[in-house]
Amino acid sequence: MTTITGKTKDIIDLVRPAVRGLAAYHIDETFVRVKLDAMENPFLLPDKIRKEIGKAAQQSFINRYPDPSATKLKHAIARYWQMDPERMLLGNGSDELIQAIILTFGGPVLAPSPSFAMYEITARALSQKVVTVPLTNEFDLDAEAVISAAKRSKAKVIFLACPNNPTGNRFSDAAVRKVLENVNAALVIDEAYFSFSGKTFLPFLKKHRNMIILRTLSKIGLAGLRVGVLTASKEIIGELNKIRLPYNINTLSQAAGLVALKHASTLNAQISLLISERRKLYNALLRMPGVTPFPTETNFILMWIEKDATKVFQALKKRGILVKNLDRPGPLKGCLRVTIGTPAENKEFFKTLKVFLTAD
Amino acid sequence: MTTITGKTKDIIDLVRPAVRGLAAYHIDETFVRVKLDAMENPFLLPDKIRKEIGKAAQQSFINRYPDPSATKLKHAIARYWQMDPERMLLGNGSDELIQAIILTFGGPVLAPSPSFAMYEITARALSQKVVTVPLTNEFDLDAEAVISAAKRSKAKVIFLACPNNPTGNRFSDAAVRKVLENVNAALVIDEAYFSFSGKTFLPFLKKHRNMIILRTLSKIGLAGLRVGVLTASKEIIGELNKIRLPYNINTLSQAAGLVALKHASTLNAQISLLISERRKLYNALLRMPGVTPFPTETNFILMWIEKDATKVFQALKKRGILVKNLDRPGPLKGCLRVTIGTPAENKEFFKTLKVFLTAD
Repeated sequence: MTTITGKTKDIIDLVRPAVRGLAAYHIDETFVRVKLDAMENPFLLPDKIRKEIGKAAQQSFINRYPDPSATKLKHAIARYWQMDPERMLLGNGSDELIQAIILTFGGPVLAPSPSFAMYEITARALSQKVVTVPLTNEFDLDAEAVISAAKRSKAKVIFLACPNNPTGNRFSDAAVRKVLENVNAALVIDEAYFSFSGKTFLPFLKKHRNMIILRTLSKIGLAGLRVGVLTASKEIIGELNKIRLPYNINTLSQAAGLVALKHASTLNAQISLLISERRKLYNALLRMPGVTPFPTETNFILMWIEKDATKVFQALKKRGILVKNLDRPGPLKGCLRVTIGTPAENKEFFKTLKVFLTAD
Repeated sequence: MTTITGKTKDIIDLVRPAVRGLAAYHIDETFVRVKLDAMENPFLLPDKIRKEIGKAAQQSFINRYPDPSATKLKHAIARYWQMDPERMLLGNGSDELIQAIILTFGGPVLAPSPSFAMYEITARALSQKVVTVPLTNEFDLDAEAVISAAKRSKAKVIFLACPNNPTGNRFSDAAVRKVLENVNAALVIDEAYFSFSGKTFLPFLKKHRNMIILRTLSKIGLAGLRVGVLTASKEIIGELNKIRLPYNINTLSQAAGLVALKHASTLNAQISLLISERRKLYNALLRMPGVTPFPTETNFILMWIEKDATKVFQALKKRGILVKNLDRPGPLKGCLRVTIGTPAENKEFFKTLKVFLTAD
């Protein structure tokens, strides 16, 4: 407790109770040689494109406020992903869009577990209740359980990551459709990993006005720009636009995103290479004793380690390889998650892991 | 009303009532030749610095997530404004910081009126109550009225813009200090226009743990980067960090901001020129019949127009000059706000205004 002057009591007493109880979101900022923890695309863009991005930044009027609608970038994304620009909204990363959705509809917020941590973290930061529903043993969506939990709790928003993070699999279409057709809530399908699965619920948007689809430029090689993408019915876009901060996408991210999407074939070639690397690493892990990789349609692989996973995580880190440690009591006990890196990085990860798993 | 399939009723029925009642924030996006509506710095950075920004963008690893703490940029801002980097937080513009403050402390939110519109807009978007307290006839803070309204409403956050927008003046020190010493709330001093007044409440931070100071890079020539700056006690920073989105400052804004602040003397020279232009325009308006400029310590001038201000606004716009029309019933009836532009722009604005004011 600290004393302060004036009439204000301890400033922490003024903080909303729900916020006081939170911990800050922790990001491991240790420098590592091989960074395979954050689902980043490991490839830099070719020099030619980076030069073009530099030129675009140089020519930007950074003394002026950005285009508040990010019109050009929005249209470029619409072309890239066959979306309707009139039914789109961009965010400062999906994070901001998740926040805007919860602010618009309020809580309770429902999400399966395990899933992307930001749904729960964001809902709690916004002082909203969170309801979690366990996935099945195969990490599939338990549609019946979701529907009844949604009814019981009167959930206002449901987040389904398809494919799911951190498990890597895509929920079965039937289960997602069943939820979609039986809940009275805004249903968010987070397709952050769409480019690595090729499957989408986009066609369902026309029929389901309570559906929201999220994508992001982060996983396709542009994580530094912070551009999240949302598409939904016009009614929902209209409501979310009231919550969105007016200048949320800065000038340089707009300019650089536009350049990068002009070279979509380069981005797509990187994605193809990552998919082929994922297959190689997955097959190699399948054949390796002491580790079980789970099916994936993303740019990462979840795996169960027979030995102490946390010790393996630490040993990898000591060698300069950072993966995500998910080894906590619960359904992911004994699990690590590795992002697909460059061919050399994947090879190094595999070889190093092999050493640790085969050593006594 | 639209019918939708599934069990979801009209999606708008699911939207929080406070959000349903809002209008989206409107930004005038008409293209104009002379843009004097948004308190932007009219000067581009010199070619040499823009080249350097281009180079920094070119060399950025945009495939990776940004530094979540924006450490280098934060330290550069700390040096530029003599702040303690340990007690700082950056936002995607001040807008995001205003949002984070309200999310942390909740409402009611108190602000004088007229003041910066985003305090009220953001509070309402977050479903929080808003209490406004009229300024005095001289646009000064009515300390007694603020203190008693804060007590009555149990306000959790008070926003004081110093200097104030859209009036342009700086509240008297005595009034601000009186409020500071007599309220049990988070007191936010928004010093967005600090660079044009040279006066700050920064030294009060040490004594008052409930105080938060906001600045921004927007008014000093970097509006496109979207970098808001907050400094406060460590306790407050700790709480706000729980609300802040983890990667809120993108890689390119971090890189470009760092370059620009390396050339602080260039930014400062632009600010000095704007201050001298403000003085010239203010004195010229003082001498012109039919218009009364109000004292200003910002990069804009509020003025009262004897003729129909809205008609003058429209006539200016027709000539390609956009100012801000504040002519609505209330204390700013008959008022326009003009941002200080380049010497040529200010001259053109003045001459054109003169024509309209002297015509029958």
